[in-house]
Amino acid sequence: MAKPTFQTPKGFRDFLPSEVRLRSFVLGKMQTIFESYGFEPLETPALEYAETLKGKYGDEEKLIYEFTDRGGRQVALKYDQTVPLSRVISQYKELPKPFKRYQIQPVWRAENTQKGRFREFLQVDLDTVGSNTLLADAEIISLIISTLKFLEVKNFKVYINDRKIFKDLPIEAVRSLDKIKKIGWEKVKAEMKSKGLSQAVIDKVKKLMEAKKSRDLEQLFSYLKLMQVEESYYTFDPTLARGLDYYTGPIWETYLESYTGGAICSGGRYDKLIGSFTSQNLAATGTSFGFDRLMEALGDLKLLPENNSKTKALVTVLGEKLLPNSLWIAQELRKAWINSEVYLDPKAKLDKQIKYADLKEIPFVLIIGEKEAKKGEITVKDLDQRTQETVSFKDLFTILK
Amino acid sequence: MAKPTFQTPKGFRDFLPSEVRLRSFVLGKMQTIFESYGFEPLETPALEYAETLKGKYGDEEKLIYEFTDRGGRQVALKYDQTVPLSRVISQYKELPKPFKRYQIQPVWRAENTQKGRFREFLQVDLDTVGSNTLLADAEIISLIISTLKFLEVKNFKVYINDRKIFKDLPIEAVRSLDKIKKIGWEKVKAEMKSKGLSQAVIDKVKKLMEAKKSRDLEQLFSYLKLMQVEESYYTFDPTLARGLDYYTGPIWETYLESYTGGAICSGGRYDKLIGSFTSQNLAATGTSFGFDRLMEALGDLKLLPENNSKTKALVTVLGEKLLPNSLWIAQELRKAWINSEVYLDPKAKLDKQIKYADLKEIPFVLIIGEKEAKKGEITVKDLDQRTQETVSFKDLFTILK
Repeated sequence: MAKPTFQTPKGFRDFLPSEVRLRSFVLGKMQTIFESYGFEPLETPALEYAETLKGKYGDEEKLIYEFTDRGGRQVALKYDQTVPLSRVISQYKELPKPFKRYQIQPVWRAENTQKGRFREFLQVDLDTVGSNTLLADAEIISLIISTLKFLEVKNFKVYINDRKIFKDLPIEAVRSLDKIKKIGWEKVKAEMKSKGLSQAVIDKVKKLMEAKKSRDLEQLFSYLKLMQVEESYYTFDPTLARGLDYYTGPIWETYLESYTGGAICSGGRYDKLIGSFTSQNLAATGTSFGFDRLMEALGDLKLLPENNSKTKALVTVLGEKLLPNSLWIAQELRKAWINSEVYLDPKAKLDKQIKYADLKEIPFVLIIGEKEAKKGEITVKDLDQRTQETVSFKDLFTILK
Repeated sequence: MAKPTFQTPKGFRDFLPSEVRLRSFVLGKMQTIFESYGFEPLETPALEYAETLKGKYGDEEKLIYEFTDRGGRQVALKYDQTVPLSRVISQYKELPKPFKRYQIQPVWRAENTQKGRFREFLQVDLDTVGSNTLLADAEIISLIISTLKFLEVKNFKVYINDRKIFKDLPIEAVRSLDKIKKIGWEKVKAEMKSKGLSQAVIDKVKKLMEAKKSRDLEQLFSYLKLMQVEESYYTFDPTLARGLDYYTGPIWETYLESYTGGAICSGGRYDKLIGSFTSQNLAATGTSFGFDRLMEALGDLKLLPENNSKTKALVTVLGEKLLPNSLWIAQELRKAWINSEVYLDPKAKLDKQIKYADLKEIPFVLIIGEKEAKKGEITVKDLDQRTQETVSFKDLFTILK
């Protein structure tokens, strides 16, 4: 028998405890802001009928994980959150509109992993379905800014344009223009030429890039002002195009000054997409955070907690005889919501127990030896400060709280 | 073209906002207890190499969702959290031991949905790997009891036995005995006979069912006592057998008095399982909560919050002219962490806006008409109490806090 492959599949990741905690820390902050604006959580299954996903992603369809289940049905792992949202909208017609939902779930794409891409990654999506007012768009932009501020990011900007101004251009011209931040205007122009686009089209693109705010954008910007959003965080960008075909109104991309890995959050209005999936047409606008990028950027900016252990104290055990004391103290600490772990081997040397706490970044080690037990005291070792003191049970709580 | 099937696949579920919030409420409480005992979160991917899962689940292997990916690799959706945990243990040898982790993630099984089973469901697992002391088992039992108490469940009991006492019995006898709570001793006996088990085996089962606590269980129970676990919540049950083959020590099942759908949480020690997956043998013990059962039981017991809207106030909008006032108030409320939603259509009638708040179970509706705007006041409608008052901006905060 071949030796089993005990590895994570290529392009898939485990998240070990410390990483899960960092991700939860950031997601918790994001959720707090999402909910402060009245967005509600939605969860959809990992699998959809393949038919639900087909014909939605153009060329990218080949990246869908599709297979036949044991019942002979064609099923697929979800590729994004937008198509499942559209299915939900059509399946539960009773949902009050506007339906403002956020969705934080993994999606799967059979990407080429050599580009440093993952095949399973968390998507953080936020959409308002069933509202055609620009208030909905302004609200989402305000929310993006609140979120990044709450995460303590300082230098970032949301670039905003109106996709409507490009509506008479061939989509290929829009797709070329979308690359302007990466490759510059000269290369965009060359690409349009090589695609066989006419000089008239190229001239039109150039002209639109110098355009003023559309009337819709004027309205949107006035809403942002009414929402007290600081103007340093957003700007009109007539060169912003967004690659996806389905946008119909305001579009935006958010960049962090310190982060060169691309936009951290993008989105826009897509009033015709849901109608193309279901019989019921519904205006919609939304945004998607690139969570892996965001985590990377926050890490670079040192905005993630350094020691994120949730355990406050390791209660060491100095032999079976003193075990009752250690167990008692741990339970008393838990009753006061001080997370504490008892070392699980009463025979282990104290050094080994302390090393375990150190490895797990548990800040305090509690030692109850014979002397301490007799006096009703506890020796507290602070692993960060490298200090140690023997205190009463009451003082212990003060130290650990 | 055939009309697309816009439905959740059979055996798969969407969780709409109110349900996600109830589930998060319960999971949050569970996590709080898990972390108070020093357990840490782990996440593993949805897909594993099929080879990793094969030969681990006996007959049930046919329920694994397995397929060939576009790169020709055999992959499978994970069937439980135990095998991925074993892979993690063997892949990251540097993880400090004991490794105490909890894992809250969906798993997938191609079950017959007619039995009311789901093909995707959340598993809440908790394991201690790398500790052979019964302290680890006692800790997990104490934690189960703390969790249910924290969820305000009153009448429940953990039934405990030592699987070692059955170690000389044929596994078929153990599997029959496992059904005793459901079908009673007479039927268990009949089943054993029909399986061709000898009278000697049946007599031995009968005798073991009347046995006293093993020495290990005496030890385990003494640890529980030291951990101050109230004795009304656990009991020795010599008839408890557990169907799975791999247990090697203490085993347990937790039942709620009010809930007839089976055990809510089961587990036990399995010192040889990890060694059968990897070259490194490691003692382990753990438990698994049946999250769907738990949610159902908590619902029956009315232990879930009735109105779980996270939005405190809907700020209505009475026309474009008064929109600035509404937007301003909503942002001020958010700054004070009072979640508030602005109604997204300034042209909508007030009735329609109030109805929306009602449908979404938002407790307060704020109305700023011309009169209120002039006086700097707000009319607050309490949808639960069906009362209404006009107050100053300052008083608004007091009411909503």
